[in-house]
Formats: sequence, C-alpha cells, structure tokens
Amino acid sequence: MSAITVPDDLVSRGDGGSIVLLVLDGLGGLPGPSGLTELEAARTPHLDALAARSSLGVFNPVAPGVTPGSGPAHLALFGYDPLQYPIGRGILSALGVGFDLKAGDVAFRLNLASLDREGRISDRRAGRPSDAEGRAVIDRVRGALEVPDDVELHVLHEKEHRAVMILRGPGLGGAVEDTDPQETGVPPLPARAAGPDSVRTAEIVESLLTQSRALLADDPKVHAFLARGFSRYEGIPSFRERFGLSGVALAKYPMYRGVARLVGMAVEVEPAGDEETVAALESSWERFDYSFLHFKATDARGEDGDFDAKVAAIEAIDALVPRVVELEPDVLMVTGDHSTPATLKAHSWHPVPVLLASRWARPTAQRFGERDCRGGDLGHFRGVELMSLALAHAGRLEKYGA
Amino acid sequence: MSAITVPDDLVSRGDGGSIVLLVLDGLGGLPGPSGLTELEAARTPHLDALAARSSLGVFNPVAPGVTPGSGPAHLALFGYDPLQYPIGRGILSALGVGFDLKAGDVAFRLNLASLDREGRISDRRAGRPSDAEGRAVIDRVRGALEVPDDVELHVLHEKEHRAVMILRGPGLGGAVEDTDPQETGVPPLPARAAGPDSVRTAEIVESLLTQSRALLADDPKVHAFLARGFSRYEGIPSFRERFGLSGVALAKYPMYRGVARLVGMAVEVEPAGDEETVAALESSWERFDYSFLHFKATDARGEDGDFDAKVAAIEAIDALVPRVVELEPDVLMVTGDHSTPATLKAHSWHPVPVLLASRWARPTAQRFGERDCRGGDLGHFRGVELMSLALAHAGRLEKYGA
Repeated sequence: MSAITVPDDLVSRGDGGSIVLLVLDGLGGLPGPSGLTELEAARTPHLDALAARSSLGVFNPVAPGVTPGSGPAHLALFGYDPLQYPIGRGILSALGVGFDLKAGDVAFRLNLASLDREGRISDRRAGRPSDAEGRAVIDRVRGALEVPDDVELHVLHEKEHRAVMILRGPGLGGAVEDTDPQETGVPPLPARAAGPDSVRTAEIVESLLTQSRALLADDPKVHAFLARGFSRYEGIPSFRERFGLSGVALAKYPMYRGVARLVGMAVEVEPAGDEETVAALESSWERFDYSFLHFKATDARGEDGDFDAKVAAIEAIDALVPRVVELEPDVLMVTGDHSTPATLKAHSWHPVPVLLASRWARPTAQRFGERDCRGGDLGHFRGVELMSLALAHAGRLEKYGA
Repeated sequence: MSAITVPDDLVSRGDGGSIVLLVLDGLGGLPGPSGLTELEAARTPHLDALAARSSLGVFNPVAPGVTPGSGPAHLALFGYDPLQYPIGRGILSALGVGFDLKAGDVAFRLNLASLDREGRISDRRAGRPSDAEGRAVIDRVRGALEVPDDVELHVLHEKEHRAVMILRGPGLGGAVEDTDPQETGVPPLPARAAGPDSVRTAEIVESLLTQSRALLADDPKVHAFLARGFSRYEGIPSFRERFGLSGVALAKYPMYRGVARLVGMAVEVEPAGDEETVAALESSWERFDYSFLHFKATDARGEDGDFDAKVAAIEAIDALVPRVVELEPDVLMVTGDHSTPATLKAHSWHPVPVLLASRWARPTAQRFGERDCRGGDLGHFRGVELMSLALAHAGRLEKYGA
C-alpha cells in the first residue's frame, strides 16, 4: 500500500550538499478566467529563472484523488509516508499550539460549549467566545484540574472556542470515543474506551470533564468541554536518524513548526512574516543541512476564493526568491504542500508543481507553472518521494548495489 | 509495492456528484499505416470537445507489461485491485454466463471432448460442436447428475464446446487440479485435491465427471468433460460498502454484467446494442450515482486485426456521446479496459488513454488520443487509481487529516 519512500539504508552519513525547501502552501491551482492557473498567471521572473535550471515535476501529495490536510501533506514533503505515520486530530492540535509532544502522549481537542439548565448542549461553540474569553476560561480551569499522580496534564487554548488537552504518563491509550455528540439538545456523551488499552485513559478524561463542569458552573457562557479527536502520539524516527540531516523549520504558523518539530527539526524562531522568514534563513545559514521555509498566504487566498490575491501572494514570494538563491544552496526546491485552487476555495487533490534546482538538474522549460512542470524530468510522482530526489541531488544517497 | 487504492475510510457517505464511466473495450491501440493509433485516426468531434474540458491521462490496467483479461481489467476500473482480488477462470466463466455467484461457490470450466475406444482423448473440443449441439449435451446431463445432499449443482452451457459447473455448499475448496491434460492421445486426469480443504470437492468433481462419461457413452461426438480453472469465489466488499455508491451496469455482454454484479452493481437490463445501452442510461438516470456503460465493438475489431473497422467502431460511439453529455453527469470518464491494437490482433499491455470531464478538471489538450492523454494532468497511473480520481472529482472523498 505504500510508495517507494527513501531507502534509508542508502543515506550517506558523511558530508553532502545543503537543501532548501520553500513551501508556498496550497500552491497548485485550477484554471481561472484566462485559462491559466494562479501560478501560470503570476509574473514570477525569479521563479522562472530558477525553473530554467531545474528539474521539474508534479506530485500527488498522498495518493491520486486524495485531498490532504496540512499535517499529512507536510509529513510527505519531509519524506514520511502519511499513510505509514498517521497523525490524529488531537496530535495536530497539540502541534498547532506548539506543544512539544513525546511518544506515548495522548492528545484530544476540546470545544468550549454552553449547556441548558438540564445539562443539554445549547451551543457547541459557547456563542463563539473571543480568543481572550476562550483563553480566560482555560486559564481558570487549568490549575484546578486534578489527575492521578503518575499523569501529567496540559491544557492549552487554541483559538476562540477551541482548546487541546494532553495527557502524559505510562500506559495511556488513544482509543477513547468523542464526548461531543455533534448536535445540540442532548447532553454530552460519556468518555468511553473503544479498546482495552484505553479504559484508564477514558476514566481520567471523564473525571477531567466532570471536574471542568463543576468549575464552570457559574460561567455566563462556557459550561462544559466537549472532547473529540483522541489520538496517541506513537513517535516517529527523526529526520537526523533517517536522513542524517540537521533540519530547521522557519514558519510563522505553529501548525507547521509543530509538524517539523515532530520529525526532529530545530524550531528556533517564530518569524513575524514572509520577509522575516527569509531573513531567518539568512541568519541560520551554515548551521543546518536542510532548511524548510513555509509561506501561508497562497493557501489562505485560495481558500478565500480570491484568484487575483493568490496570484499576488505568489508574486510576493517570487520577489524574495533572489535572497534565497544568493545563499547558493546545493538543492533548492519550490513547491506547495497541496493544491488550493481559488475556484474551489478549499484544499484539493490536484497534483502539485515542483521545481528542484541543482547542479545536476535536467531542465525542460523556461517557466514555473503546472503545464511546465507536467512534462518535466521528475515526472508524476508521490509527495513522499520528493525527499529521495532532494537527497540524491545533494549527493547524499549512496549507490544501490554494486 | 502495489498501488494506492481508494482509502475507503475517506469515502463520504453523504451526497456527491454523479459518475459515468464509458468503457470502449480494448480502446488503446498502436500506430497503423498513417503513424496514428486507431483512436488518433478516428474522427471524434464529440470526444475531442469533451477532452478539451477534461483532465487527461494514461494508465496501466494492472501493472506495467501486464496484459489483462476483461475480468481483472474491469475490476481495476471499478476500484478493486485485481492483484488483491484475483478472480479465477471458473469464476469468470460463471460470470460470463450471468450466473449469480455467492461467496463460497466453487466454479470450474468444462471442455466437451471426444474420447477414443480406449478412453484416450481424441479431440479436446469434440469436433467444435455448434452452440445448439453443445447446449443439447449440457441439457441432457444436467438433470441426471447426482451430488451429495448438502451440495447444489449448476451446469451451464457457455458457447460451442465450453460449459461451466458451479458447486454450492458448505466447506467446498477451489484447490482442485485440472483434469484436462491439454493434449490428445492420453486419458483425462483424475480430479485431485491440491490442498486439504479441497479433498471432498475433488471427490465430488471426480464423481460428476465419471457420471457424465456414463451418461454420454452413446453420444456420437461428446464423450467426456475435461475440467479446469477451478476457483472458489471468496466474495468481495460491495461497491456500496466501499464507495457509498449505488451503481448500475449497462452492458450487452454477460461477462461485463457479471463483473459488475460481482461488485454489487445493479444489472437490470440487457441492451441489444450500443444505442440501446445509451438509451438505458437515459431511462435509469437519476436512480444511480454511478453508471457503467460497456461497448464491445472496439475490442472485437481490434482482435479481428481490422484497423479501419476499429476506427469506425470508435466513431460510432463518438456519435452517441452527446446523449451522455446532455445528462450532465458531474464526472464523465471515457476510456478502455485495456488496449487491443489492430496490428497485434489481441489484448495488450499498452497504457490506456482516459479522459475525465468534470468542473474541476485541468485540461491540457484539444483532442482525445494516446498522445494527448500522455501529457495530461492525471499522469501515468494504475487502473485501480481511477476510482479515487472519480470520487475526488465528484466531491465524494473527505480530506485526509487536518
């Protein structure tokens, strides 16, 4: 069921070239009014110059027809098959708030909810509290909740009505059923174990949710937490173990720093914006073998359905490209984690264009766009295979067999 | 090393768009005298117009270099990896005569054969009886054969010297060796079990073949049945279970209705020809999410080695395409189950061109043909992956991860 992922035993542990990955989130698109996609329509002189000395291709982030979320899509870009390393919702939320997960942790999401006087859910989002209101509720319960002595509890506010809980301790399980019934007019469900290894975890969760209700009894809006997306983080082999690389993630948003931290990349800074992301690369240069830079606006404008704004977001990154090129990375890749066509206003399953500039490229086109990449030398591959290509072009993969 | 098939847990059980699959059997070809393939040489204005608003691609029905039979090739088109769901010859014959198989049934093929006075095979095909002669022989033995009380026997004539037997009952096995020695001048082989679960089945088969010889002792031509292609039908999860789709098969030939029935599609009508197949789509429209239409002539003319007749068969289907387009399916795919190049006069392993028309397509060419499809956005994929793409374009696949 899996693709050919990086043959780890071929990874050279010695020296090799530097690798830079620029991710324009949701880069791939669909034709707009002009018949061109967002990337094809954008004026991108610097990306085009790069494409002219690159191997080009397109890839399916996970599999044909599959629309990936950001977590699995980035795992694939980092060389981890998301079908082999599934990451649950709770884990993603924990990553999203920058929590430093350890193998064995159980994470789940919380909805702040309103109850009526009979204990039935009247609003699953508690009237959509502001970030400050939501945070205040979490701050209030955090210190008061009690867990068994061998368990460590973390409660973190995410955004508005959303928060995340993480339990750390021996023998916890992620097979706990949602307490969020996904409807109003009914009481929250009890936390029930869906497997024998999660019975105690379910009891702890039930106790936490009961304690929370007592603590929130007099709150004007938020009377209970609804829990869902339970998942246990199983741990995955690190970037350094697998690829012999020291990696760094430069990303404004915590979600992307979180996925990078999961595979063991350094996460030192929180750049305030795109220019700062590139500046962070300049200052960390020479210290890392692999640098991952994340730019969000392309995806956000795609989800807005604003074709022209997505074009502008691409052009804004293009203007920053020369600063990356000046560092002379041995391998420079520019791509997306998935497609977010403005016409669709959502993530999609469409293949993603990629350029890989290196001394060993086989250039095939003068521009960077879906149509140019489609006929490129990298062909039509799976996202998880990009890492093998990067390692090869960086001189970091040994010959297979004699 | 197998392909990614549809991740069933992403299938949306709710609403989604309608899907139509037109299969021009054996569509793929090889260059004829003009250097163009049959599809490239054909005048297909309607398919070309469809291609201009489609995502295009080519696929290997089973795997590179593998020439598929119709059964596996169609299973792949329906999203079932034929390497994961192997279908034995006996099962295919049973499907071919329209028999309604149940999990646990054991089916095998019969050759009507002539023996000499010493019981040695003199003609493995009994002088090639006509359909009527072959049917008369089967009708004659059918009622007279005896099986144990807990076993149900079905004997069906296929065509000329070919028939099929199906055993239904508890604990039957498909590991029985062929009794057809594939040569003349030697007696038929005994039915031997090739595994412990098939000992009783082999005994039942041996008894049936012995009874048949007694019943046929005075027949002028047919003196024995040679059995081969034993297989047990294990059952496969239905189309509805896996993809949440209600499907219908509209096909003139029983083989194709049989494979469709295997995966749980409705098989209501037996269209008399191609026009009637499209008319059946029109009358069943609105009642099904997924409609499979099968057209045989392209394959038959390819096997004849008649390049021009295959071109004409493609053009005849092209003329029917507007009636399908008028129904406005959300996803309309046109393809073959495999290639049948007229120059080769047989099924082949060559990649098959496909067009997928949908609102979310990325068009790349103005024509439908092998060379246009080769550079298309769907790339070069495996047949079983087509279903994922169809579901995605129909809005029937959930996002993978957050």
